[in-house]
Order: sequence, then structure tokens, then C-alpha cells
Amino acid sequence: MPSTPRCIAVQTATEQYDIHIGAGALAQLGQQARAWNKGRKAFVLTHPGLYELYGGRLSESLRAADYAVESCLVPEGERSKTLRHAARLFTKLARMGADRQSVIFALGGGVIGDLSGFVAASYMRGIPLVHVPTSLLAMVDSSIGGKTGVNHPLGKNLIGAFYPPRMVVTDTSLLASLPEREYLCGLSEIVKAGAIGDPELFAFMENRVQAIRERDEATLTTLIERAIAVKVRVVQEDPTEKGVRAILNFGHTIGHALEAATAYARYTHGEAVAIGMALVARLSERLQYCSADVRERLCDLLTTLRLPVAYADIMPQLLLDVMAHDKKSVNGVVRFVMLEDIGAVAFQQSVPLDVLQELLEEYAATPATAQ
Amino acid sequence: MPSTPRCIAVQTATEQYDIHIGAGALAQLGQQARAWNKGRKAFVLTHPGLYELYGGRLSESLRAADYAVESCLVPEGERSKTLRHAARLFTKLARMGADRQSVIFALGGGVIGDLSGFVAASYMRGIPLVHVPTSLLAMVDSSIGGKTGVNHPLGKNLIGAFYPPRMVVTDTSLLASLPEREYLCGLSEIVKAGAIGDPELFAFMENRVQAIRERDEATLTTLIERAIAVKVRVVQEDPTEKGVRAILNFGHTIGHALEAATAYARYTHGEAVAIGMALVARLSERLQYCSADVRERLCDLLTTLRLPVAYADIMPQLLLDVMAHDKKSVNGVVRFVMLEDIGAVAFQQSVPLDVLQELLEEYAATPATAQ
Repeated sequence: MPSTPRCIAVQTATEQYDIHIGAGALAQLGQQARAWNKGRKAFVLTHPGLYELYGGRLSESLRAADYAVESCLVPEGERSKTLRHAARLFTKLARMGADRQSVIFALGGGVIGDLSGFVAASYMRGIPLVHVPTSLLAMVDSSIGGKTGVNHPLGKNLIGAFYPPRMVVTDTSLLASLPEREYLCGLSEIVKAGAIGDPELFAFMENRVQAIRERDEATLTTLIERAIAVKVRVVQEDPTEKGVRAILNFGHTIGHALEAATAYARYTHGEAVAIGMALVARLSERLQYCSADVRERLCDLLTTLRLPVAYADIMPQLLLDVMAHDKKSVNGVVRFVMLEDIGAVAFQQSVPLDVLQELLEEYAATPATAQ
Repeated sequence: MPSTPRCIAVQTATEQYDIHIGAGALAQLGQQARAWNKGRKAFVLTHPGLYELYGGRLSESLRAADYAVESCLVPEGERSKTLRHAARLFTKLARMGADRQSVIFALGGGVIGDLSGFVAASYMRGIPLVHVPTSLLAMVDSSIGGKTGVNHPLGKNLIGAFYPPRMVVTDTSLLASLPEREYLCGLSEIVKAGAIGDPELFAFMENRVQAIRERDEATLTTLIERAIAVKVRVVQEDPTEKGVRAILNFGHTIGHALEAATAYARYTHGEAVAIGMALVARLSERLQYCSADVRERLCDLLTTLRLPVAYADIMPQLLLDVMAHDKKSVNGVVRFVMLEDIGAVAFQQSVPLDVLQELLEEYAATPATAQ
């Protein structure tokens, strides 16, 4: 039985959109788009597997709201997030007569969302975009905040735009079929949301580990709503990443380096971020940003949720090199988001290179299981 | 002797930047960029001819302000405005280690400005952009307002972004060497600025035809300043083209159709817009938006400046088809900016198809010289 979707309103200096959250929200998608859009054409951008699972329901909802629906399919996975695929999509949109009122519906996880967002941002200098996230990570993270982009051989997300969606429809019932590892990946970002800005959410997770493992729907809805609320609060304050938005990168500087150093093959994004958070918590303890208790609570929650808190067999120098080339480093200087307490972080903190190096070397020298 | 540059401040909801105008303004470029930028690297994007003329002066000014300067050269002309060239520039920027504080200096006319703007908007989701317009058209039009883009085989500027520059440096001394036809092209947009929003500017032009022809520097500075002021006023009200900004398209719907129907080979943009304005003035008179006097003043000024007010030998149906496919048409309906008075227009006006068709057929049937 679909529940009535709840709604979180996002309002930045230039844009405003609603995030509709609830089991069965997909069915109301067409009608909700009609509330703000008069276009004739809807383009569903997704990969074949998702199209088979949800394409029918999505198209039905859109056709009932008088949209002519076209599907734009790209291969599954990161390899679709390229300028080449974006170029093909521009051609397809132009051929199909997409105009400035036509809407792109991004049905998928982060890859589909990022690619669709860049295409929507750039086609005719911007046409309406609706995110329909299908993974937990996309629901709580990539569908919110307007970051879009494609990869370049010399850097992930090197080409992109800040482009907010016109609406987000988060149907929690889509999570039932999500593979376990992808589910954990989303949980990692929810732990992050608690750690950087919502101690109650963090405590709620500590107390509901069993319900979280079982994907209890009420528990999940709470997690998603609160994690979204943290991100929305931060993004509203800083839509184009000039200041406080940096706190969303808690655990991500090391996390990104781990992903890049292992060619994006060993860890999911969430696993890398979990390790990144655990390492930064240790750094924070050593540099006296936080107590040992705080570091321990973070590492314990991650471990209980079956997320990794350590790595091994990666050269420290490789990680340091990757970090120096990060998009966020300026003039080669890396800055960290440090943990002060559960729910409180300090951003743009310089870390002495020797302390960072020492920590990374300890990890490199120790088998992962012993940490 | 370089005069002290004047400055027009642009302020929209999310961005603010200064337009520095004056003979010799180029010399102060580096120093002015340093006022808001701490980056190490400057990328001068231009074509070889302009680089030879002004690259030295630009680089000197940047090096004096402690920038490491790299040049990014693309072939001259519209053929550089493609996603392929943008892709090459992304690679070049990444190879050269451009980061989010690195600045792109777009030295050129509309093509260079549009391409540079799209590259600056998309590289790392946006890095600082400075326009250094070298043509009159770029000075009064394309360098202001944040429209960027590249062409696609299926449409001009089909791929792009709204992305404001961080600064514009308009050195009027660069105009001395501008070819006559390009100079006229810029004048056409200045006539438009007067017609849509500055009757004093329009009257000033009527009274200074000789000085304008001779490119008298004081006269030119006034024209440029006032035309920029009109555009800035409109863009500030509507940075992403949702309403009033449409008035900037006065003469452009028919103008774009003329350009497209002649494969961008017969008319400059300014010539096509001049004809477009003259035709819309006739439409406006017929549909009683304006008096015959108003139409006559507009056509007379264009003619006196040696701009065309008529075309011939183009099939009306071709023009109508192109207009229906314009980026700005929605669900196939074309809307016009109609002339009400010198300095006053009405936007988003529907024009009965038969009236439009009749007008175009009259032109198609009559040799241009007789009109």
C-alpha cells in the first residue's frame, strides 16, 4: 500500500524544488511534474536493467499526465559517464525535438543522475531535470545539491555543472531489490550525515542496527529524511561549494584517493568513504580535534553496520599524490574536514604532511584485519 | 595616451562582476584580476591571429601580476565552436594542472567568448572566466549576460550554460583595427539597445552618424557604455532568460532564421539582425503596435549606418520552418518582440501566421534594392 509521500522543500538563491519521499511515490510522478511543467515531451534517461524494472511504471505515470515519453538508454556503470555519451544524448534530444520545456527524468543511481544532470544543464543551456533515484546513495546524496558531471581520462567528474533538479522523487519501495553492497554504500553516507550535522540521527542509527540491516521501511524512511535534511541545510547555505558545503566532503578526500588508487575497482564509493571517515577520525584524535570516545563511536557504528574502517596494501605516496591532484585542492594544498564531535566538524583544516604520512604508513604496514 | 577605464558593476542574484571600459584597459588586466583571484595559472584562449596582435600585451600584464600564462589557441571562426574543441580544451587544462582558482581569459569576439565560457563553466564545474572582447559586437553584447555555448550539427548554441564571467575588460583601442563589416555588425546591436530600452542612445546615434562612421573614440565610448547599460539592466532582472530578457531578442527571431536559411554565409549576425529589426518594425506597424513614424526612424537609422533593412531570394517557408525550430520556440509556437516606440518593446507576442507569411512573401517577391 503506497503511503502518502512526504515533502522536503529546497530553496537556494536562484532555485527551488521539492523532494518527494515515500513508498510508491513513483506513481504520482507525472501528475507532480504537471504541477510546474507544460512541456509535451518527457525523456527517461536510464540503463536497460532499470528500464526493464521501472521503465513501465514511470512511463505509465508520465503518459497519464499527457507526456509523450521517449527512453534514452545508456550502458550500465561508470563507463557511461563520459562526454561522448553526453554528446550522443544531445543528438538524440535534438533529433527528437526536445525544447526548453521538455523534461529529463533521470532514473538511476549516481552515474545516471550525474550524466543526466550534465546533459539537462547543457542542452539549450538548461532544460528541466527530475531525479528519480533508485539507490540509497543517490537518494540521500547525489540527487540533492545540483552537482552534475562526466568523467575525463584525467579526472573523475572533471567536466560538469552545478545544476539543480526541478524536482526529486524518492520512492523508498525501490530499495527492496537493491544489492547488499550498494545498500551499505548508501548507509555510509547516512553515517556521514549524522557525523557532520545530526547527532540524533547518529544515535538513532546506533540504536536501530538490526532494523537497518533488515531494511525496515519506517526506519529507512527516517534515515533518508534526516540525511536529506542535513544535506539540504548545507547546500542551501552554499549552493556552489564556496564555503561550508566543504563539510559534505568529510571522509571524502581520503575516500576519493582510495578509490582512484585502486582504479575504482576494489571499493564502492561508500566503502571508501567509510575508511576515509575512520582515518580522518584518527587524524582528528591525534591532532586533538576530538576525543578518543568520539573516534571510537564513529568507527564502532561503521563496523557494526559492516562497513570497512581500514585498508591495506596501498602505497601511502600514491594516496598523497592523488590527494594533491584532487579537484578541491588549490595550488596543490589539501585541506581536510576534521571531526570535533558526533555532529560537529571543522572544515578547510590544514594537516601537517608528516602526521598524515605517518598515519597512512601505519595502515600500509599493517594487514587490514589487525586494525 | 590610455584614459582611466570606467567601470559598470553587474549584480545578479548569485554573481557580481565589473565591466572595465576604456582605451588601454588591457594593460591593467593582470592587476585587476589579482584583486579577486589568488590562482597561479592563467589560460589565454584565443585564435592565432588575435594572439599575434594582442597576446603579448595580455601575457605581459598577467605575468606582471605573477600569473604563469599558458595560451590555448583554436582556429579562427565558427568552426571552433564545437564540443570537440571544448573536449580538447578540457584535456589541455587538465594536463596543464588547471585548478579551481585558475583563470580563463577569453581574448576574442563572440566565438571565442562562447567557447571559452562553456569550457570555463564546465571544467571542474566552473572556474573563473574573464572576457576580453576584441570586436564591437562582443563588447556590447556577447561578453555580457553569461550566455555561453557551442554549436551542434542540429542547432547553433545547442549545448551551453548560463555562466557569468568574473570580470570583463573592454579595451576600446582594440577597435581601431576591426574590419568595417564587423564594426557595422556591432553597431546593429547598439541600434537594438537604443530601440528596446534607451531612446536617448538612439537619438544620439541619429545625431552622430559621421562621428560613428569615423570611429571617433569619445563617441564610441558613449555608445558602448550605454549599450552595455541597457543589456546589464535587462540581464540583472532576468539572468536565466525566463521573462523580460526576451526583449534582447528584438530582431533576432527573423535574424537567426535569415542566418540559418543562408547557411551563415551571406549575412553577418549584425546584418541579419538589422534586417530582422526592420521586418519586425513593419510587422509592428501592420499590427498596430507602433506608428509608421517609429518604423521609419528605425529603418532610416539602420540605412544611414549602411546596415541592410531588406533581403531577397529566400523562400518564406524556409524561414518559417527555421523559426518553428528555434531554441526559444516552445511546442512549435514562435513569439516575437514587437516595437511599440523607440525605446519600448512588448515581448512574447504571438503574430498571426498569415500576417507573418504575407510579409515574408512580399520580401521574397521583391528585389532587395526596391524595398
